[in-house]
Amino acid sequence: MIRLNSDYLEGGHPLILEALMATNLQQTPGYGEDSHCAEAVRLIQVKCRAPGADVHFIPTGTGANKTIIASALKPYEGVISADTGHINVHETGAVESTGHKVLTVKAIDGKLTCQDVEKLITEQADNEHTVKPGMLYISQPTEMGTLYSLYELRCLSDACRRLGIYLFMDGARLGYGLAAPGNDVSLEDICRLCDVFTIGGTKVGALFGEAVVITNKALSTRFRYMIKQQGLMLAKGRILGIQFETLMRDNLYETISGHAVSLARRIRQALLDKNIPLLVDSPTNQLFPVFSNEKCLQLASCFVLETWQAVSDQETAVRVCTSWATTPEQADAFIAAI
Amino acid sequence: MIRLNSDYLEGGHPLILEALMATNLQQTPGYGEDSHCAEAVRLIQVKCRAPGADVHFIPTGTGANKTIIASALKPYEGVISADTGHINVHETGAVESTGHKVLTVKAIDGKLTCQDVEKLITEQADNEHTVKPGMLYISQPTEMGTLYSLYELRCLSDACRRLGIYLFMDGARLGYGLAAPGNDVSLEDICRLCDVFTIGGTKVGALFGEAVVITNKALSTRFRYMIKQQGLMLAKGRILGIQFETLMRDNLYETISGHAVSLARRIRQALLDKNIPLLVDSPTNQLFPVFSNEKCLQLASCFVLETWQAVSDQETAVRVCTSWATTPEQADAFIAAI
Amino acid sequence: MIRLNSDYLEGGHPLILEALMATNLQQTPGYGEDSHCAEAVRLIQVKCRAPGADVHFIPTGTGANKTIIASALKPYEGVISADTGHINVHETGAVESTGHKVLTVKAIDGKLTCQDVEKLITEQADNEHTVKPGMLYISQPTEMGTLYSLYELRCLSDACRRLGIYLFMDGARLGYGLAAPGNDVSLEDICRLCDVFTIGGTKVGALFGEAVVITNKALSTRFRYMIKQQGLMLAKGRILGIQFETLMRDNLYETISGHAVSLARRIRQALLDKNIPLLVDSPTNQLFPVFSNEKCLQLASCFVLETWQAVSDQETAVRVCTSWATTPEQADAFIAAI
Amino acid sequence: MIRLNSDYLEGGHPLILEALMATNLQQTPGYGEDSHCAEAVRLIQVKCRAPGADVHFIPTGTGANKTIIASALKPYEGVISADTGHINVHETGAVESTGHKVLTVKAIDGKLTCQDVEKLITEQADNEHTVKPGMLYISQPTEMGTLYSLYELRCLSDACRRLGIYLFMDGARLGYGLAAPGNDVSLEDICRLCDVFTIGGTKVGALFGEAVVITNKALSTRFRYMIKQQGLMLAKGRILGIQFETLMRDNLYETISGHAVSLARRIRQALLDKNIPLLVDSPTNQLFPVFSNEKCLQLASCFVLETWQAVSDQETAVRVCTSWATTPEQADAFIAAI
Repeated sequence: MIRLNSDYLEGGHPLILEALMATNLQQTPGYGEDSHCAEAVRLIQVKCRAPGADVHFIPTGTGANKTIIASALKPYEGVISADTGHINVHETGAVESTGHKVLTVKAIDGKLTCQDVEKLITEQADNEHTVKPGMLYISQPTEMGTLYSLYELRCLSDACRRLGIYLFMDGARLGYGLAAPGNDVSLEDICRLCDVFTIGGTKVGALFGEAVVITNKALSTRFRYMIKQQGLMLAKGRILGIQFETLMRDNLYETISGHAVSLARRIRQALLDKNIPLLVDSPTNQLFPVFSNEKCLQLASCFVLETWQAVSDQETAVRVCTSWATTPEQADAFIAAI
Repeated sequence: MIRLNSDYLEGGHPLILEALMATNLQQTPGYGEDSHCAEAVRLIQVKCRAPGADVHFIPTGTGANKTIIASALKPYEGVISADTGHINVHETGAVESTGHKVLTVKAIDGKLTCQDVEKLITEQADNEHTVKPGMLYISQPTEMGTLYSLYELRCLSDACRRLGIYLFMDGARLGYGLAAPGNDVSLEDICRLCDVFTIGGTKVGALFGEAVVITNKALSTRFRYMIKQQGLMLAKGRILGIQFETLMRDNLYETISGHAVSLARRIRQALLDKNIPLLVDSPTNQLFPVFSNEKCLQLASCFVLETWQAVSDQETAVRVCTSWATTPEQADAFIAAI
Repeated sequence: MIRLNSDYLEGGHPLILEALMATNLQQTPGYGEDSHCAEAVRLIQVKCRAPGADVHFIPTGTGANKTIIASALKPYEGVISADTGHINVHETGAVESTGHKVLTVKAIDGKLTCQDVEKLITEQADNEHTVKPGMLYISQPTEMGTLYSLYELRCLSDACRRLGIYLFMDGARLGYGLAAPGNDVSLEDICRLCDVFTIGGTKVGALFGEAVVITNKALSTRFRYMIKQQGLMLAKGRILGIQFETLMRDNLYETISGHAVSLARRIRQALLDKNIPLLVDSPTNQLFPVFSNEKCLQLASCFVLETWQAVSDQETAVRVCTSWATTPEQADAFIAAI
Repeated sequence: MIRLNSDYLEGGHPLILEALMATNLQQTPGYGEDSHCAEAVRLIQVKCRAPGADVHFIPTGTGANKTIIASALKPYEGVISADTGHINVHETGAVESTGHKVLTVKAIDGKLTCQDVEKLITEQADNEHTVKPGMLYISQPTEMGTLYSLYELRCLSDACRRLGIYLFMDGARLGYGLAAPGNDVSLEDICRLCDVFTIGGTKVGALFGEAVVITNKALSTRFRYMIKQQGLMLAKGRILGIQFETLMRDNLYETISGHAVSLARRIRQALLDKNIPLLVDSPTNQLFPVFSNEKCLQLASCFVLETWQAVSDQETAVRVCTSWATTPEQADAFIAAI
């Protein structure tokens, strides 16, 4: 049985495990104040060409999202999100548990338009009976594997700055977006256009962990208090530092992402060649082919895929993911089976 | 420089790293629904002789504490704690961030008396202008390294049941308590007398992670929703499962704890032999010797200790910890220096 | 200038002010434990034929809503609401401020269908990554002045009970619903079919105040703790008791409601006679005629109406409300002007 | 039976009821945006000689306290309070329900010393594992009826400004403090030395309501959003405006306070004359005489007093309050009875 249902099926990239082994007996200060965390921060600053960026490490994506949002918003403010956004759908109300409303906007293929966002912000401005929008949350790639172009991102960023709200990009799978064909958004662009974003580790080769990169100083104040209060500060914080130090060194993050995207592209081409429709045409490591239910059943004897949604009575969209651990052989086996 | 300031200075026990390596390429379901988590749960149930216990894994101690407490209390309820309790002092208001008051009782050497607890509960019963006590939080060992005896624990448990509140034991360093000379409280006792408790991994050989053991079914309902909402559910949940599987197998948890306690005992004896006073006489892996400030300075050239509190203008209590990674040579070097 | 923009433009019904005067020097216990509150509770129980109902008084509608919802839900649960529901749109995130998500369902004329509600509940059942629906919130009349029929209410109630969630009816304008032509839902029905509901005072003749009627005992536990914690318990609680005692006595509540609805009906007939379209055809005290922008401007010289929404470039829907204080002369003046 | 157990036993001062009657048919905008609220704000600004102060009206004391505190603090901040402070003891965890810890300092007769406050702030500065103090809460008069002198208040204010935290004075009974013999703190002083304070209405002649006076602009931003979110914004906001307009006009607030304090002084003198000890010697409208239990029983046949605390096996301290409604005859009857 080959599992292709997600990008968090195996452990961590072998170089990460090696680094944990090699450093295991070092004695370091706790709570992320060690030299590995410091080096990981430096490497991220260099990669982003943002020497002043404030970087923190948090074990989970939901944890990173809720900490960032709760840290940025005033009690009467909410965060705008695509209706399909992870914070709106798949975090068990984590944002609301910190007291803030998620203000949803209808998305197309996981993406928001600048116009819709501006409309929401201006409609709810200066009316004390409604929640004030305080932040825009987007994911890159989105939950549907799609990407904002540089033009689209700049438009959202301009709108946020003009209307006085923060822009937060959830990069749980950011590596796959950076490696995608046609992507024209760089880490430098993200630093310049967003106030805060994450560089996902969990789904890009780490055992666990997300890097939070804060480029707007207003959001930096006592962020570590927030991490601690949320229960997200590891005593042995180095475990996160060592992982990101490894991912950021020698382009490992890019190598992992490129590998997974190239296998996904190979599978996508095969799907197109066989005229299998795609629910959404994603350029990243997640694919959403639509199979007949019969075909789904047949594939299920050899592959674990994620059932995404019924498309009709006879057809179902599934999710197929690649990762650092997916082998060309696995991809080829799937291609042969479809 | 030898660091003895805490028990989370190094990485994880070598057997844990080995297990992570050995399982790295296995494909497993996410979010803790894998076979390693299941096996770790089983091993804990066996060790506790509590086959029906509900066991979960959470990355951090503060995370475990706030999730357990927020899950158990109604909005108008609070949790009773020693004024020196970790949740009251060192968690940046994590409990309050979930909406609940920490009701403090003056502690002696980190411990609460049954009488004081009963007094607080009865005083605040049935008065809608005050917070209703809903849970008692104790730590074993306490933040001062001390232990509740079986008699004391039974008394607290009886009071809680009689007065209708839950009893929660924070076992962040539970292994060291179980291994301490004179300890007469077993895991079985804890299962029987508490409604929920934790078995700490972070400070007892894991890279990170705490096991939550729920023995009162009333507290089990949808606990995984709580973990997810708190941002504490790892996508690769197996990382926690593998660690606890390793710790619970072949008595590794007991071996690690015994090793650390025996080195702590050796240091304690040396302190007593040299008539160095102890702020609190702890039987576990944390010691609190009181040195002259001059001596502190002198020790600081070779050892990192944790400054605990000024005892007088001339004297300071420091904390000395041992762990799985402390070597007899390190202990002896410290003994030679004092 | 005649204001018809809302039903809270004047003070309280004269009989309420008289009662406050008449009782002013009585000495009573505080916090709602006085004889006026007790009598108001009794009168509501009698009117509802629900001798066991638990009744409380809360100063504001938003306060009542958030207290009821926060009291009923577990931390990981959310409340289902029409997207146009007051708690979703016009309470500045009050529900979310207590930690709970509002799960929205698209409404038609302010109303939800049983089918849509069932679909949402079953879709989000037993998935710890999503918010569990714990309560259904409906308003009667809705924010658009429309009413659920007994058949529709029974269907929603059946679904809630079958699927294990609470049903809460926000009756901020309940009197106008009970008095509406064609209404077939009685207070007794509401008691039987809902777990908790409110009888609005603020918009039906009181200076302020809502009665919360809890018919499901599971929701009664320590509700007064919740009121106090929310900052909604008046020291001179009698002020609420005296108002509801007055409203519930001698059918004053029904008289006020009937008066306002009959004036609204007169205006509605005039609108229909003049072929002025209605955004929604409401049988209660709120009307939503659509005027040309030119007509709106013209009316604005003599009347204050509430701009509801642009219907086209040339037309705007406005809200016209009647209340205890609206006079036939005011209604006729408006009819003459349209 | 004469009730002297609190200062909220009757309704409101007759002039307040008259004003409600006189204005009842006026049509005004809702939510506190009417001319009566505006006039009440202006009168308070004049009385405080603080033309720029931002003034809001909130129905309850607990509501005002939690709204002010939640509005001022960041998520990781707490509010310092006397252990006997109302927010710590008698508000059912209202502050914690908004996510913030109450950091307690041992009080003497309800009062804090500048030294103790400074110690707490500096101890918890810059340590992300502890709650950061963000505000100091004091009450004037305190819950024990005592008063801070101008010298003491200035010292606390200086410390707060030096250490960068806000100072909030809860003036639920402020009038009685201003009217007390020996008081040297004026409203102007309070405006200058505090960042925000309340002028209590409920216990000083209103039916209900507290005025919040914000003199530090940093605390003003979108305060109305906070009031609305808390469920504390009345649709007929004028009811609060009319009451404060009346209280602030023609020195009614001072007249009411002076009347109550003078009767309390008469009773206090009688107690001293008869050598009845006082638990605390309060110069305001609350007295705390210590009677033998036998005497308590005897008094109970004619008077309702509030049992405050057992002083010994044979003696109990009770609370005696005066208010606008207390008559000289009632005071004399009590004096005759003791």
